[in-house]
Amino acid sequence: MGFFIDPCLIRPLFALCILSIVFATSSSAAGAKTRHFKWEVEYMHWSPDGLESVVMGINGQFPGPTIRARAGDTVHVELTNKLHTEGVVIHWHGIRQIGTPWADGTASISQCAINPGETFVYRFKVDRAGTYFYHGHYGMQRSAGLYGSLIVDVAEGEKEPFHYDGEFNILLSDWWHKSSHEQEVDLSSNPMRWIVPQQQRECRLRGNEQYAPHILRVQPNKTYRLRIASSTALASLNLGIGKHKLVVVEADGNYLQPVSVDNIDIYSGESYSVLFTTNQDPSNNYWLSINVRGREPKTPPALTILNYSPTSASRLPNSPPPVSPRWDDYGSSKAFSNKILALTGTPKPPTTSDRRIVLLNTQNFIDGHTKWAINNVSLVLPPTPYLGSIRFGLSNAFDQKRPPDNFKHDYDVMRPAPNQNTTSGNGVYVLRFNTTIDVILQNANALRANVSEIHPWHLHGHDFWILGYGEGKFTESDVQKFNLKNPPYRNTAVIFPYGWTALRFVADNPGVWAFHCHIEPHLHMGMGVVFAEGVRRVKRIPNEALACGLTGKLLMNNVHK
Amino acid sequence: MGFFIDPCLIRPLFALCILSIVFATSSSAAGAKTRHFKWEVEYMHWSPDGLESVVMGINGQFPGPTIRARAGDTVHVELTNKLHTEGVVIHWHGIRQIGTPWADGTASISQCAINPGETFVYRFKVDRAGTYFYHGHYGMQRSAGLYGSLIVDVAEGEKEPFHYDGEFNILLSDWWHKSSHEQEVDLSSNPMRWIVPQQQRECRLRGNEQYAPHILRVQPNKTYRLRIASSTALASLNLGIGKHKLVVVEADGNYLQPVSVDNIDIYSGESYSVLFTTNQDPSNNYWLSINVRGREPKTPPALTILNYSPTSASRLPNSPPPVSPRWDDYGSSKAFSNKILALTGTPKPPTTSDRRIVLLNTQNFIDGHTKWAINNVSLVLPPTPYLGSIRFGLSNAFDQKRPPDNFKHDYDVMRPAPNQNTTSGNGVYVLRFNTTIDVILQNANALRANVSEIHPWHLHGHDFWILGYGEGKFTESDVQKFNLKNPPYRNTAVIFPYGWTALRFVADNPGVWAFHCHIEPHLHMGMGVVFAEGVRRVKRIPNEALACGLTGKLLMNNVHK
Repeated sequence: MGFFIDPCLIRPLFALCILSIVFATSSSAAGAKTRHFKWEVEYMHWSPDGLESVVMGINGQFPGPTIRARAGDTVHVELTNKLHTEGVVIHWHGIRQIGTPWADGTASISQCAINPGETFVYRFKVDRAGTYFYHGHYGMQRSAGLYGSLIVDVAEGEKEPFHYDGEFNILLSDWWHKSSHEQEVDLSSNPMRWIVPQQQRECRLRGNEQYAPHILRVQPNKTYRLRIASSTALASLNLGIGKHKLVVVEADGNYLQPVSVDNIDIYSGESYSVLFTTNQDPSNNYWLSINVRGREPKTPPALTILNYSPTSASRLPNSPPPVSPRWDDYGSSKAFSNKILALTGTPKPPTTSDRRIVLLNTQNFIDGHTKWAINNVSLVLPPTPYLGSIRFGLSNAFDQKRPPDNFKHDYDVMRPAPNQNTTSGNGVYVLRFNTTIDVILQNANALRANVSEIHPWHLHGHDFWILGYGEGKFTESDVQKFNLKNPPYRNTAVIFPYGWTALRFVADNPGVWAFHCHIEPHLHMGMGVVFAEGVRRVKRIPNEALACGLTGKLLMNNVHK
Repeated sequence: MGFFIDPCLIRPLFALCILSIVFATSSSAAGAKTRHFKWEVEYMHWSPDGLESVVMGINGQFPGPTIRARAGDTVHVELTNKLHTEGVVIHWHGIRQIGTPWADGTASISQCAINPGETFVYRFKVDRAGTYFYHGHYGMQRSAGLYGSLIVDVAEGEKEPFHYDGEFNILLSDWWHKSSHEQEVDLSSNPMRWIVPQQQRECRLRGNEQYAPHILRVQPNKTYRLRIASSTALASLNLGIGKHKLVVVEADGNYLQPVSVDNIDIYSGESYSVLFTTNQDPSNNYWLSINVRGREPKTPPALTILNYSPTSASRLPNSPPPVSPRWDDYGSSKAFSNKILALTGTPKPPTTSDRRIVLLNTQNFIDGHTKWAINNVSLVLPPTPYLGSIRFGLSNAFDQKRPPDNFKHDYDVMRPAPNQNTTSGNGVYVLRFNTTIDVILQNANALRANVSEIHPWHLHGHDFWILGYGEGKFTESDVQKFNLKNPPYRNTAVIFPYGWTALRFVADNPGVWAFHCHIEPHLHMGMGVVFAEGVRRVKRIPNEALACGLTGKLLMNNVHK
């Protein structure tokens, strides 16, 4: 299984990057604002990595425009679909959509896809400062390039719990040379065809290319906040800056106990803020380097330069790029994960849970097609979005059989399954409103012996507490080791090969929420589940979100004369 | 402007080909039948020409399955969209959809596109024997490979007006190596990027390739009916069989006065039946050859073999492939067109018309983007299909300004326009029900001097009489030359470079009907108009055809609690 990260693909988004801001010294009386955006999604020619491709852009930009707002603001995006034959939706990754579950931007789950030529209004509150992003959530449109940054600053008059003099914002992505449509066909084929990297090219840059890396220009002896989010289709990454320590202070919109590291792992779906201080020799420049984790890298690192003013940006660093851990050094990954702890003041988990759902992650076959399954069900989303079909009690819209809360107790997670066949389904985990749910993500051997992969799982509509990571099969005694004191509060958590990860969350957000591996091909192959909670409490869902499938039928019935 | 026809791309569809049938000798009491089909549309890997591509297939087949029915039958196709993010529709080319205008399969016109995962039932009567086909009519999905044959035999007990011993069925298509999505982006770019041919490959065939030509196996001294339809994206073609005369007997589902030719022009959207008699030396085989017309061919002919039994099919013909007229020999094209006359018994045109609509075909720019325009309007279809929006009187669904019935009298069709800019629109030609309409298709110079192209225009919902072809600008005196005696009755007619073509039809089919150039890239670039007639008489349109855009909104309004 190949993969690649293009060396030109670190794409810091500078459109709204602001250097040397001093926040929060003056507090104005101004309250929350509504931030209006008018976007058109369309395909366009672009060279994400030097080879011209067709990408899905927004308003002629790739990646899409950065949204910048303050905590408490309302974001109002009028999204017009200018594609010719494809529907589209946009998911606001990390925004919990409290009270607006229809704005979560998940086709088949929260809304009907927006038809070509039509406009849908995403209107939602960004209730909490943090580093977020947005992306397509229909078919594999994220892989087609539909993504951008969403940055929420603290409310006016509020302060971040750390100081910095300026900031940069990097949205990480990987780019593959087959169209997302072709990737879908490849992945669905029998035998499956995995995404393959293109030949390496040399990046000879003049600096004005669409794929030229953005230089990070800094002043000496300042502290910078580097926001990093990963929208990669596939790649797990590690970022470092030569000779500079990184102090991790935020993850997925929640503050952390500051922790100093030499480099940082970022999985698809995660976001971080790290601080670094420009305390090195200002007559040199320094490499910012990004390497691949968890799969054998077939590509050189992605590079850009930290450029100390007034040194020329064209001066190459005299120290080598920082070294990432080896791709398969999971020890360092785990050590890093275990260092991520919530800052005091972060909401604490309830001390007990009402229900435990254990989700076994397996790779399987259906009629010879390679799939991923959770507790032996490979997710195939229904044409009618759940939010509407559950709200209106349409029992024929999806499998009414509830998927299992556990897997067979004698399943050996360390070996290939004796029977590797599975079945597809689209049943829903219905969570009792306001109850506390534990989810144990249980990794296992994939199809081939001695292979177990990393999966970053992302939950919509909530943050969860990561109570712990473990090796092998989760057992009842592991509960004793749960961190209930300062577990990080996040929306994405990884499971390591042959390991488990324990999560806790409160089902207090009426809606229907995807929970899935954020690796786009894995989701395409069925690696996800659907949670529903308090759907009867959901207020008026806009008709536009319901105008398809069985809800569309229902609402149109008996009206047509 | 390049183009290509792949030599492997003659695709006779033999799935339902029947040799040596003797029709109509016994008449059974059985009446009309309903023919049921269950189809799934999905992308799949296929090698239409030896290079593996992703094509849009039906039930795993490319081209799609052949429909075979008898005149008077009802065709019932349950079409399920198995694409991941794209809508789909299918147009039944040549079927007039009398009483079922919502089944015409034109997105934005007759119905809402079928969403992924959903099923739409096309149910319509095939009222008349003939050679038809079906194809996608949304974006450029026809170019993606969504097409197949639709053959209607005479009703049981009825006889064709000519004799034959067996038949073959060929659906012509051209295949391009960029995806239809990429073609859409290319064509919409500024500057426009035209469809370009791939490098030539040599076809070294073993015979079992997906792209291997089908051999036409014949018995000596028999008469065969060869059905030919063209679903090409772009190419105009000419077909001949070495040493065999072709007797043309049917065009677009209407019988012709038999006319003997050496070769036959076929434009995209046209269909023909030709008879040939196997009266040549049976110890030889003979080439069937297809060449490109109207554009400089950059490809060798497409070839297959007429194989006389019991001669071995592997024996190559000892006579050369038949010679087509030179690509730019429009004289022979026009001579052929003028030979096509209706068989006695074909409906005759009314002797006068109630309205004349003159449609000037020009190539233009909009903000630097290359377009085609009709009377200075480049068609951009609206998101809400006209059939519903007109039926429900939604005046905000499309331009309410009627497009013009003529162009400026001093426009010089022989030269590039002084102002090459145009505007887009989607107004409708509203035709008074049951009136007789003349349409004069007026060709003109394209953007560059001394360039005027061939355009095959196809009318939905009707056949029209082709009253005549002429050179230069149509004038009132040309009316005298109209053929009102035996004009061919067809659904597709070509305009020649710098010429005009006069059509007449009766607006007697309640519905909304596309009339457009059948060259897929030209339609994409705006080359079409929309006719509406008797829409108030349209009976209950199925909700499924209305569940999008403003009709969806309307029908759902005030129902949602």
